[in-house]
Amino acid sequence: MITHNIIGFQQSATSGKYIYATDPAMLATLPEAFATATAEETDRAVSKAHQAFNIYRKIPGTRKAEFLHEIAKGIEDLGQVLIERIMQETAYPEARVIVERNRTCAQLRMFAAEAISGGWKTVTIDPALPDRTPAPRPEIRKMMIPLGPVVVFGASNFPLAYSTAGGDVASALAVGCPVIVKAHDSHIGTNALVAEVILEAARKTGMPDGVFSSLNGDGMHTGQQLVLHPLTAAVGFTGSKQGGRALFDLGQQRENPIPVFAEMGSVNPVFIFPGKVRSDSKGLAGQLVASMTMTVGQFCTNPGLLIALKDHHTEAFLDELAIALKVIPEASMLNHGIYKSFHRGVAAVREVNGVIMLHDHQSSEGLRTAPVLATVPADVFLAHPQLHHEVFGPFSIIVLCENMDEMLSVAGALEGQLTATVQVSDDELTETQPLIDILIYKAGRIIMNGVPTGVEVCAAMTHGGPYPASTDSRFTAVGHHAVQRWLRPVSFQNFPANLISGMTND
Amino acid sequence: MITHNIIGFQQSATSGKYIYATDPAMLATLPEAFATATAEETDRAVSKAHQAFNIYRKIPGTRKAEFLHEIAKGIEDLGQVLIERIMQETAYPEARVIVERNRTCAQLRMFAAEAISGGWKTVTIDPALPDRTPAPRPEIRKMMIPLGPVVVFGASNFPLAYSTAGGDVASALAVGCPVIVKAHDSHIGTNALVAEVILEAARKTGMPDGVFSSLNGDGMHTGQQLVLHPLTAAVGFTGSKQGGRALFDLGQQRENPIPVFAEMGSVNPVFIFPGKVRSDSKGLAGQLVASMTMTVGQFCTNPGLLIALKDHHTEAFLDELAIALKVIPEASMLNHGIYKSFHRGVAAVREVNGVIMLHDHQSSEGLRTAPVLATVPADVFLAHPQLHHEVFGPFSIIVLCENMDEMLSVAGALEGQLTATVQVSDDELTETQPLIDILIYKAGRIIMNGVPTGVEVCAAMTHGGPYPASTDSRFTAVGHHAVQRWLRPVSFQNFPANLISGMTND
Repeated sequence: MITHNIIGFQQSATSGKYIYATDPAMLATLPEAFATATAEETDRAVSKAHQAFNIYRKIPGTRKAEFLHEIAKGIEDLGQVLIERIMQETAYPEARVIVERNRTCAQLRMFAAEAISGGWKTVTIDPALPDRTPAPRPEIRKMMIPLGPVVVFGASNFPLAYSTAGGDVASALAVGCPVIVKAHDSHIGTNALVAEVILEAARKTGMPDGVFSSLNGDGMHTGQQLVLHPLTAAVGFTGSKQGGRALFDLGQQRENPIPVFAEMGSVNPVFIFPGKVRSDSKGLAGQLVASMTMTVGQFCTNPGLLIALKDHHTEAFLDELAIALKVIPEASMLNHGIYKSFHRGVAAVREVNGVIMLHDHQSSEGLRTAPVLATVPADVFLAHPQLHHEVFGPFSIIVLCENMDEMLSVAGALEGQLTATVQVSDDELTETQPLIDILIYKAGRIIMNGVPTGVEVCAAMTHGGPYPASTDSRFTAVGHHAVQRWLRPVSFQNFPANLISGMTND
Repeated sequence: MITHNIIGFQQSATSGKYIYATDPAMLATLPEAFATATAEETDRAVSKAHQAFNIYRKIPGTRKAEFLHEIAKGIEDLGQVLIERIMQETAYPEARVIVERNRTCAQLRMFAAEAISGGWKTVTIDPALPDRTPAPRPEIRKMMIPLGPVVVFGASNFPLAYSTAGGDVASALAVGCPVIVKAHDSHIGTNALVAEVILEAARKTGMPDGVFSSLNGDGMHTGQQLVLHPLTAAVGFTGSKQGGRALFDLGQQRENPIPVFAEMGSVNPVFIFPGKVRSDSKGLAGQLVASMTMTVGQFCTNPGLLIALKDHHTEAFLDELAIALKVIPEASMLNHGIYKSFHRGVAAVREVNGVIMLHDHQSSEGLRTAPVLATVPADVFLAHPQLHHEVFGPFSIIVLCENMDEMLSVAGALEGQLTATVQVSDDELTETQPLIDILIYKAGRIIMNGVPTGVEVCAAMTHGGPYPASTDSRFTAVGHHAVQRWLRPVSFQNFPANLISGMTND
């Protein structure tokens, strides 16, 4: 395992400072000492990325695809070494890790296909009109070009799919942007394994020195320096609102502001119509509990907020939820910070007058946690904005409304969300219109009779949403269109066609 | 003429404070007293726009198109009243005003066609895969939706095409966003005439109260309040870097940041290859002088920087430029602020050691100005960043390079630009590649053997560019794709088709 910083094709460890990974299940410090990056090393990584950019962006899409395929193959070839390291650093069960590994490789191959097709260039041509009066029109041809070096901050909860070789990295590399990854402290060994795969893949497929770097963070300094570096062109981040907003602010306050795409999670409200509760209380409870507790609730699309009418059908439904939750075993959370923040969040909810804990959990061994479920009357919820924020982990709160109007008020009071879900019986479908009218201005994705977890990687996906779900609701972090975050248009007026094609070598 | 603020279908003038338009050619204050907006009126305009939004966005595209057509017709029907008011407020010659009037109406009709086609929704569908294993895929359907109320700050130099019914307003209205215009002080009477046209068009075509408002600014307060208003969804601005950046910063520092599209102009470098100077020195000089001096140089695509090799062919070319400039008559600039800023900018250039004035102008009657042309050696230019900034008006500086490498260094040292132009003979075309490689990272549009002025309104246009040309190089302010500034995607998962179509009524 490379415990140094990887700066292009070099390894570097000059700080004399080291950080260590933790096994959250055992609360044990893992043995490898990872050298933190110095300011000079950080600068070197970005400068190399800038130099590599001028070569890399002109490499044909077919060769960029080879690079991405080689990364996918390298990740698969790591086999159990990688799987076990991830399990050790995250306390995730093996099946969960394998699903994420397969998704990561599928994403790399999907973006490789995008690199080959060149569809991301979205060429628009207005042909010349030489005979137009009063003035002829020259040909104008617009195409997208890559922005430049991209800095990626990995996600604590997706050590592969949204980290070192995850969606942000793969989409940036596919369209010609070199990447500098700031390794997540929480799975810094996983990062090292994957970064080495990318390093070897770059060498093997003849990519330029600097197309990829991986830095171990020195507290917040490394990340801040990366966002402020004059040669950084864009930033991808997945994590907390506090962290994402801080990086966004740094990016916007630069002399030349840059795009900072921070995906900061949400409570993912699920609106439950009375007919649905009446007709399938048990099925619905099972579906929701599975979504709420998957991976100890550590999904950014975890349904943290359920909204239902206060009636006796809902009472029965709450019983079903409590029964389904009882059999969910305790499991370790990702790290100490997340564990503490979860219990602090739940404690703050518990203190609100009117909140009733349906299924509670206060403490157990290490970072182990069981799901927590509470209810609150809608008027109390509306009067307490602190109940509207995400508690990252296996926590959900059910808002009980007197009537549909109150349900609409709750919808209108929500912050921006990644998703919003409507659970409804077939004969209530048309009644959902006023609610959906509100929800499209609250969320990036609206789900009918499903659960928010399980984000499809496809062209029609929007993973993003109004602030604070993300800092830029106009883009998606998942799916084919994720490449659009790293592009801008340029128009060529009156250009010979061979000059334009020479520019991209495709 | 309505001298009050127009707030939806109401007129309002509660401040007791008034501002007046100026005739720049005569330096005379015009008689109409325009009531400035109070904080309450400003809030009312945005609140009304928000209420109107929920109705307006669902109005079918064909009816939005009727509204836009009615505005275009209303502007044409104003005839000489409008033409003369613009001439009076801008000192533009009639021909220039008529061209802009026609362009404005053409833009309104172009965006009306976009409203009818609904192409801006760019629907993407991933069909359901019910038999997929391990889990079936639901149908996911992505489409763009309008952001909400848009605030538009008009441009001093385009009283019609980039002001009250200009490109920003027409593109926002076409896709369902209500608009609040902050009238430009410099042509506040023109604004009043056009705002009344929009008001009447909205009434006549049955648009909701609040779909359009026009406020007369109370100093900077009105603009700041509009950008900070919680219900404002996006901002369009055309003007100075100082003004644009201030509004951008306000927009990003909000609790929920919003897109602020500021188009802040540029120096629009023109790189002249030696073969072009040799083969067509006189033709080139004539073409460039026309572009430099059109409308007293008051275009954001005005070529303010020429870069050529220092040789005897260029000497002859400079003589041709000076000769062509001599016959350009003095003319009045748009307003006192622009006039003062122009002469302050030129004075700062004049002071730099190494700058030689080829054609100078210091003062004359009122705001009248003649073009100014200077030369500077490339090494001096490179050492003086203050020479890189825009001097808005009929000023250009020619950078003389020792060789092509120095020309590339000048290109590399430039700030972000709206445009960059390459003037080259046919047999030098392939030699331009290294320069164009740099320029695509400096500008939004690259022009081969043309001039930067004369921005085509078409689908392939990019009017925007890296900072400080604009605050967001990923979008264009001109052409069909200008609508993309006011949109974001939302994905519908597992939705019955009739529920989605019911959402937009198209």
